[in-house]
Amino acid sequence: MQTEQLTAYIGAVVDLTPRQLALALSLFEPARHPKNTVLLRPGEVSQHLYFVARGALRIFFIREHGQEVTRHLILEGEFATGLASFITQQPSHEYVQTLETCELLQISHRNFHYLLEAVPAWEKFYRHYLEKAYLINLRVYQREIAKDAEQRYQELLAVNPQLVLRLPNKIVASYLNMSPETLSRIKARLLAASASK
Amino acid sequence: MQTEQLTAYIGAVVDLTPRQLALALSLFEPARHPKNTVLLRPGEVSQHLYFVARGALRIFFIREHGQEVTRHLILEGEFATGLASFITQQPSHEYVQTLETCELLQISHRNFHYLLEAVPAWEKFYRHYLEKAYLINLRVYQREIAKDAEQRYQELLAVNPQLVLRLPNKIVASYLNMSPETLSRIKARLLAASASK
Repeated sequence: MQTEQLTAYIGAVVDLTPRQLALALSLFEPARHPKNTVLLRPGEVSQHLYFVARGALRIFFIREHGQEVTRHLILEGEFATGLASFITQQPSHEYVQTLETCELLQISHRNFHYLLEAVPAWEKFYRHYLEKAYLINLRVYQREIAKDAEQRYQELLAVNPQLVLRLPNKIVASYLNMSPETLSRIKARLLAASASK
Repeated sequence: MQTEQLTAYIGAVVDLTPRQLALALSLFEPARHPKNTVLLRPGEVSQHLYFVARGALRIFFIREHGQEVTRHLILEGEFATGLASFITQQPSHEYVQTLETCELLQISHRNFHYLLEAVPAWEKFYRHYLEKAYLINLRVYQREIAKDAEQRYQELLAVNPQLVLRLPNKIVASYLNMSPETLSRIKARLLAASASK
């Protein structure tokens, strides 16, 4: 079942022969983690790329004065890792943490690069992944620079309402770089405004 | 001369046969632009990837209330484009502008993708470019989120002093997302502090 999801994901991105696909799939190992498991923390090197078969994860870092900033949220059907550290194999500055019980399929950095060598078409998978990661990051950056708290919330509601509906207020607030109190205030204001229409 | 620089860059990233290298180089066209030329503006689709043989470029966008935010600065020996739009072939949200007279070698999006098909090893070039773009963007984002104005300036001085020495105060300030006045104040303060040591 998990493997079917992963097969579908890979098949949508890159054309592999049945043999190449079997090799790729054989390098992913299943793993199951309870809620709030930290898979990577600052100082550690990101050794795995995770396909999320079930559950939700976040990537976050902690500011000097202790505030958590969630940079990225990942639901099932997507890949996740501490990508900067996965690329450089230098210690991460970020945390990767499960937000729900997660069923993952993980490939090690070593096997990922073995696959890039053994199956040249796998480059296209990685290209797709990097392009997507770049676009997501740029959107988060521009949202941060150019939008105020209410605009950030409304953009998230428009682009990815699932995240707002499914995840705790505290996590959504840290993803939008605002306090939970500010998020609650914005929600209440928007609700009142829509009720008075 | 320009082609030698580009050949050296490519050679450091990917192993091509002489024939593949000749094909790649043949798809880059020289272009020369005076200072302050806008190569891409919001609403246009990013059609070229530029190798900067000489000069400096910036990538910036304009906030709602008119403030320019410079997201990236590129000097000779590096590649530049409005990458999000180059990836998606959707209209750009960003400007690409020359800051000095620039000598560029440009490859069209179409020829770049032709090269990816014709020379599978070219994927590695693109992989390298995307990884680097991701890492740069993440650093800019984290600097923005986690550091105050003076820390941002000091980080830039440590990582890339050339940018501070070579580019106008106004551009450096917009890259650090602060007003030119704030940047001048920080510079004066640091100078006074170092003089009194």
